[in-house]
Amino acid sequence: MDFERIKALLADKNFSLLQEELINMQAADVAEFLEDLEVKIALLVFRLLHKEMATDVFSYLSHDRQSELLMLVNEKEFTEIIDDLYFDDKIDLLEEMPAYVVKKILRNASETERRLINQFLNYPDNSAGSLMTIEFVDLKKEMLVKDALDRIRKIALDKETIYTCYAINAHRVLEGIVSLKDLVLAPLDKKVADVMQKEVIFVNTYDDQEYIADIVKKYDLLSVPVVDNEQRLVGIITIDDIVDVIEEENTEDFHRMAALEPMEEEYLSASIFGLARKRIVWMMVLMLSATLTSFIIQKYNVALSAVISLAAYIPMLTGTGGNAGAQASTLSIRSIALGEVGFKDIFKVIWTEMRVSFLVGITLAIINFLRILFLEPALQDNTFSIAITVSATMLITVMIAKMIGGTLPILAKQLKLDPAIMATPVISTIVDALTLLVYFTFATWIFGIAS
Amino acid sequence: MDFERIKALLADKNFSLLQEELINMQAADVAEFLEDLEVKIALLVFRLLHKEMATDVFSYLSHDRQSELLMLVNEKEFTEIIDDLYFDDKIDLLEEMPAYVVKKILRNASETERRLINQFLNYPDNSAGSLMTIEFVDLKKEMLVKDALDRIRKIALDKETIYTCYAINAHRVLEGIVSLKDLVLAPLDKKVADVMQKEVIFVNTYDDQEYIADIVKKYDLLSVPVVDNEQRLVGIITIDDIVDVIEEENTEDFHRMAALEPMEEEYLSASIFGLARKRIVWMMVLMLSATLTSFIIQKYNVALSAVISLAAYIPMLTGTGGNAGAQASTLSIRSIALGEVGFKDIFKVIWTEMRVSFLVGITLAIINFLRILFLEPALQDNTFSIAITVSATMLITVMIAKMIGGTLPILAKQLKLDPAIMATPVISTIVDALTLLVYFTFATWIFGIAS
Repeated sequence: MDFERIKALLADKNFSLLQEELINMQAADVAEFLEDLEVKIALLVFRLLHKEMATDVFSYLSHDRQSELLMLVNEKEFTEIIDDLYFDDKIDLLEEMPAYVVKKILRNASETERRLINQFLNYPDNSAGSLMTIEFVDLKKEMLVKDALDRIRKIALDKETIYTCYAINAHRVLEGIVSLKDLVLAPLDKKVADVMQKEVIFVNTYDDQEYIADIVKKYDLLSVPVVDNEQRLVGIITIDDIVDVIEEENTEDFHRMAALEPMEEEYLSASIFGLARKRIVWMMVLMLSATLTSFIIQKYNVALSAVISLAAYIPMLTGTGGNAGAQASTLSIRSIALGEVGFKDIFKVIWTEMRVSFLVGITLAIINFLRILFLEPALQDNTFSIAITVSATMLITVMIAKMIGGTLPILAKQLKLDPAIMATPVISTIVDALTLLVYFTFATWIFGIAS
Repeated sequence: MDFERIKALLADKNFSLLQEELINMQAADVAEFLEDLEVKIALLVFRLLHKEMATDVFSYLSHDRQSELLMLVNEKEFTEIIDDLYFDDKIDLLEEMPAYVVKKILRNASETERRLINQFLNYPDNSAGSLMTIEFVDLKKEMLVKDALDRIRKIALDKETIYTCYAINAHRVLEGIVSLKDLVLAPLDKKVADVMQKEVIFVNTYDDQEYIADIVKKYDLLSVPVVDNEQRLVGIITIDDIVDVIEEENTEDFHRMAALEPMEEEYLSASIFGLARKRIVWMMVLMLSATLTSFIIQKYNVALSAVISLAAYIPMLTGTGGNAGAQASTLSIRSIALGEVGFKDIFKVIWTEMRVSFLVGITLAIINFLRILFLEPALQDNTFSIAITVSATMLITVMIAKMIGGTLPILAKQLKLDPAIMATPVISTIVDALTLLVYFTFATWIFGIAS
């Protein structure tokens, strides 16, 4: 988004024209603009917005900017902003704000709302309860369609979505859903119960967000109702929040696959110590595991001294093994995440990887054999034996790496671990050690050296 | 999903009860059930479905299963299935089906539809044109609200979404959008033009799907209108298709980051040669680049023969360097994909990584130093010098790896390459070579050996 025009108006202090420009902008764009301004200037621009747009813009701001603005506004503005937020945005805000802002918000809330807020704040992170909103349309299933439409018309303004309505019985138990489309198309004197769909897909307040995202994707839903343990309707989750969950879960997988502990802050706004802490534990575990490779090499020191040229191929072999493992584990992890592969497929995966890795491994081995034989005259009389040793190791390494990379994520999943842990860093640490064992075993055979 | 119950009914040939069970199931679940049945049995079950549900179930099936079923059904069923599909599903189907199925579909289509199909098939892969559907509600902006509502009621059944309607002028140019919510709430005698929102977010038929997904995410849209080069409304893209795009783009990034060429087939249904081809090119490039490491080691052969124990630490050093690079490049690639980091931030990234990598590097170096000094008595008199050499290399390697990992994706993006290419495999190949150069440089200094 290019803000040149409104930046110029702001610099010229031409506030009336600026106000007109802002009216025609999207709330998300105005928020993006406010994000980069000095906070006092941001407040000045924020105050130019119409009340309705202001709330909208506010909900698109980062939590940092939100709390900066809330600290500067007066009591009346504060109440207006908070009152108009959708309930799920309000809860999000409360979870991130400094304590005194939270207190101020709770002080301004009614008794009922305060109870509700406390209940929502108690849902575990990443649960349906923490994601849901209470601004949905519920209809008594005994209502007539025409009364239902009237009710929707009356309460629609405050609701996050009116396109799916939820039919409940006298005990607030969810009994069906009915789309606005179906209501609009139905005869006015039918009952809601006659037009509603009785087979409802719903989630429980304690269900995990990853599971909810899978449900929404599978059934192509625009929103999903949330019920408590007594099947009573307590909220809904809308697709825009699910899209955020999908990206969050993907980010978590990307990070975990690179041995980074998941973090919620943005990269450049996180603290240096925070960033270092997220990285160091895994790095240390992996480094210490890698000392196994030192022991293996030390064990074969005699072989290595006898044919010092063997050392030259170690990084290429471990590197290629690592890449082969990375390919297989990434395919496997991603297929598990998308629900395409499960534990029952483990033998299929092994059989697939066995054949694929043979094709890839033999190709690489041959290329490598020819390269050493013809392009490395420096090796004198050993050339042929070295070429054989390196190429045979190459084939076996690629095959081992691909089998391990393909199956470990599936086993992790079966053991209720996150499959994403079994990605490049862990796989390549394991493969490094195995590669060296294979290499030196071949070397001692081929060169006839005692280890 | 557990299909025990309906499997039992199918085995018992209790078709009337099976049919009743199917009515109450979700289309996506029925599709999942049909997917794993023998194709003739699947057809038998498919024929038990009511017409409306049958189309729905069909659209959830995999392309393979769709074409298997289409080959077995009779002419009448064929026409019914195809006619009832939403236009975007029909186009998807046409793109994947064998030629004779396509011919059959085109033969059954009207002249207008045939022209439209051909036009849609010509949009480039992954463009807005290839994603959009034509089942949307368009309203003349001069219409009255009450006439608009009547029109929606009349045509709603065939439309994929009626919750956002599109206002056009006499030349079909998109002039505004109006939600069903706004129409329902508006006075009946106002004009559509008076209640519509004039600032519309739209995309062009040739825009790329990744860009469209970004737009939808940024503005929390449920659907986005697509216009041609003359700003005429030609289609819409709905959020359920965008969710698929998001997952597709993420999969592409996951694969590319593991040096796999992107593939659209599912892992276990792809062919062995196909899988091997997707992997081998990058593997070969990386293996041949890694031969650089052999040359470096050969160059320092003398140093290595003098202190053969140095060889033992090579895999641990390159492995740790690779992991450090993987962490930084993954953070950087993901932040670019989420729009949090751009070229303007490159110095901020360098400065961040410099400090983080120093913290991480120095910690690892110290742990490593102590471990070698106290836990490796096998090194005799060299222990201290080796510990210093390895630990100093560790610090420098981690720092280099993190700077390269953090910045190369940003540079790739600036050069219009996919940042995901600059992930673990490429980074670790570069870092391996640099690690060895640093290691042997330190070794020749500390041990006073001429290289």
